Amino acid sequence: MTDTRLIPAGRLESFTQACLVAVGMPADDAAIVAGLMAEADVNGSDGHGIFRLPQYIKRIQSGGINLHPNISLHRETAATALVDGDNAMGHLVMRRAVQVAIDKARTAGVAWVGARNSNHAGPAALYAKMPLAHDMIGLYIAVGNANHLPPWGGTEMLLSTNPIAVAIPADQEPPIVLDMATTVAAYGKVKTAAQRGETMPEGWMIDREGRPLTDPKRAEEGFLLPIGGAKGYGLALVFGLLAGTLNGAAFGKDVIDFNADSVTPTNTGQLIVAISISAFAELGVFKRSVDAAIAAMHASPTLPGFDGVRMPGEGSYAVRLKREAEGIPVHAGLDAALAKLGQALGVEPPS
Amino acid sequence: MTDTRLIPAGRLESFTQACLVAVGMPADDAAIVAGLMAEADVNGSDGHGIFRLPQYIKRIQSGGINLHPNISLHRETAATALVDGDNAMGHLVMRRAVQVAIDKARTAGVAWVGARNSNHAGPAALYAKMPLAHDMIGLYIAVGNANHLPPWGGTEMLLSTNPIAVAIPADQEPPIVLDMATTVAAYGKVKTAAQRGETMPEGWMIDREGRPLTDPKRAEEGFLLPIGGAKGYGLALVFGLLAGTLNGAAFGKDVIDFNADSVTPTNTGQLIVAISISAFAELGVFKRSVDAAIAAMHASPTLPGFDGVRMPGEGSYAVRLKREAEGIPVHAGLDAALAKLGQALGVEPPS
Repeated sequence: MTDTRLIPAGRLESFTQACLVAVGMPADDAAIVAGLMAEADVNGSDGHGIFRLPQYIKRIQSGGINLHPNISLHRETAATALVDGDNAMGHLVMRRAVQVAIDKARTAGVAWVGARNSNHAGPAALYAKMPLAHDMIGLYIAVGNANHLPPWGGTEMLLSTNPIAVAIPADQEPPIVLDMATTVAAYGKVKTAAQRGETMPEGWMIDREGRPLTDPKRAEEGFLLPIGGAKGYGLALVFGLLAGTLNGAAFGKDVIDFNADSVTPTNTGQLIVAISISAFAELGVFKRSVDAAIAAMHASPTLPGFDGVRMPGEGSYAVRLKREAEGIPVHAGLDAALAKLGQALGVEPPS
Repeated sequence: MTDTRLIPAGRLESFTQACLVAVGMPADDAAIVAGLMAEADVNGSDGHGIFRLPQYIKRIQSGGINLHPNISLHRETAATALVDGDNAMGHLVMRRAVQVAIDKARTAGVAWVGARNSNHAGPAALYAKMPLAHDMIGLYIAVGNANHLPPWGGTEMLLSTNPIAVAIPADQEPPIVLDMATTVAAYGKVKTAAQRGETMPEGWMIDREGRPLTDPKRAEEGFLLPIGGAKGYGLALVFGLLAGTLNGAAFGKDVIDFNADSVTPTNTGQLIVAISISAFAELGVFKRSVDAAIAAMHASPTLPGFDGVRMPGEGSYAVRLKREAEGIPVHAGLDAALAKLGQALGVEPPS
């Protein structure tokens, strides 16, 4: 790709932090958000890292984010909590929620922590992976920040891509990290394709008459398709009720399209479940069993057209190694947007 | 359907109970299993009710089920437990596991209970729905009892249809009950189609060269397709690791094909999560919000070819009302199998 250049993750992180500070975010919070956004880019979540910075800055400048939030526990039991994010950046809310979940799961075996009055927090995998370091499995579900999915058979976009991520540690192998939208394509991928001038494959979107829609610039004329038809709709629906409605967060008609509206608080809902492996199994035995499962999958013969079987997270792990060594590929369109943003904020663009 | 007749659920239940007692199951246990199997039929889970009785009886007669099990808690924390089923009928194991989960969630807010040394337990929704009566949300995941799904791009059938069910209570509306395999079709549907002499739609199965397979009698020549391609594979994989490996139950190569082998203990793994609504929300507010979400979905305009939007569980609920009034439609092939079974066991067939 000649229209991209490689920028070290650390420079993107510094630039992000400086921009967030320039619009008034306290330095400690800016460092946390910038670190998680750079982590998203390193892991290959191109629709969730530096790509989102202009939008985040716009929302902050519009007063749509609380830069001095009181992130607090609203309800609490031995194994649950409801975190009220006070309209902070979602990264800060979810980082806190995961910490609470890990602490509780240490004694309760499992913890389920919901968040409300949160905001877009980047890729689901970021949060599902945090419990791994504590020998726990992480499970994260979120209500997406714009409705692009109708109920199955319908045309009113009442649902988002409501993603799930699950991270499971192995012994010698990299962890298994599933991170998926309940739609065939995440909307971030549509936005990325539009910015890059690419065409979408059939199956990502349809128009209001049910015909395939492949031009990402026409995305507003149609909607995303759920995986497995009615099944993906069912997953998006129950994930939305669990991460949104149960937490007193927005769901359905109440979801704010954060692409179109930078002012109204989104009241984003998310949830994290931390599962202590030792509550169910001897840790080493479990991790070695996961290694064995990975080896068995890898050893499967392949269908015509496939050169191997991959584990969820394996592609991202390979991207991570490459990007840590080489830097993050930044497309010319994004590069220009960042330069413009830096100029406006008096921050030197990443070089 | 002229080749089916309607039999009241109560008669199927009595017949099932009598057959289970005839092969040595204690009467109380037989009543529980028969009740849950009849419940499956009433709810429209045709592949999981009386349809399974000949197979269950065969396994019991082959010594593949422990009729006098000690179902016990192997590990336990405030919010978790590992139930060892001692190779009992899966219905008995999961009923116990759900009871433990509900008890723990009352104080801990949430409980995650795993099961090992269990067996096929019928439809996932049965167990996900049990917490509803306690104003809890239920989430159930199981390792399927035969591998019909390769990892994405592979041809070795290392995975099962590993289903998930989530039940969420509403106020005036019936509960939302999602119950889905992570494959496009559950294997029970393939078996039912084969028994009825029906053809499968394209997309359910492919053969080893990747070509569509539509004759259910040739099911052994191919495998099921996951929903959303790699995404459904990812879900089947992590569900298997959570419900199987984490509990010390079978996963991957260790899964026993209970269609082919009626003797070897299956060491089936399942898990139930009970979530107390009041840990996160005011109960009435939550239930009314679910009603509102249902109303919003129902009000969506529809795509060409659809006459309305349905909620997960809505079809099953309608079937339930119909079958409670009219009885369970039993296909001639199954009817004959039941008559033969009754004759062999000295139990009068359901009339």
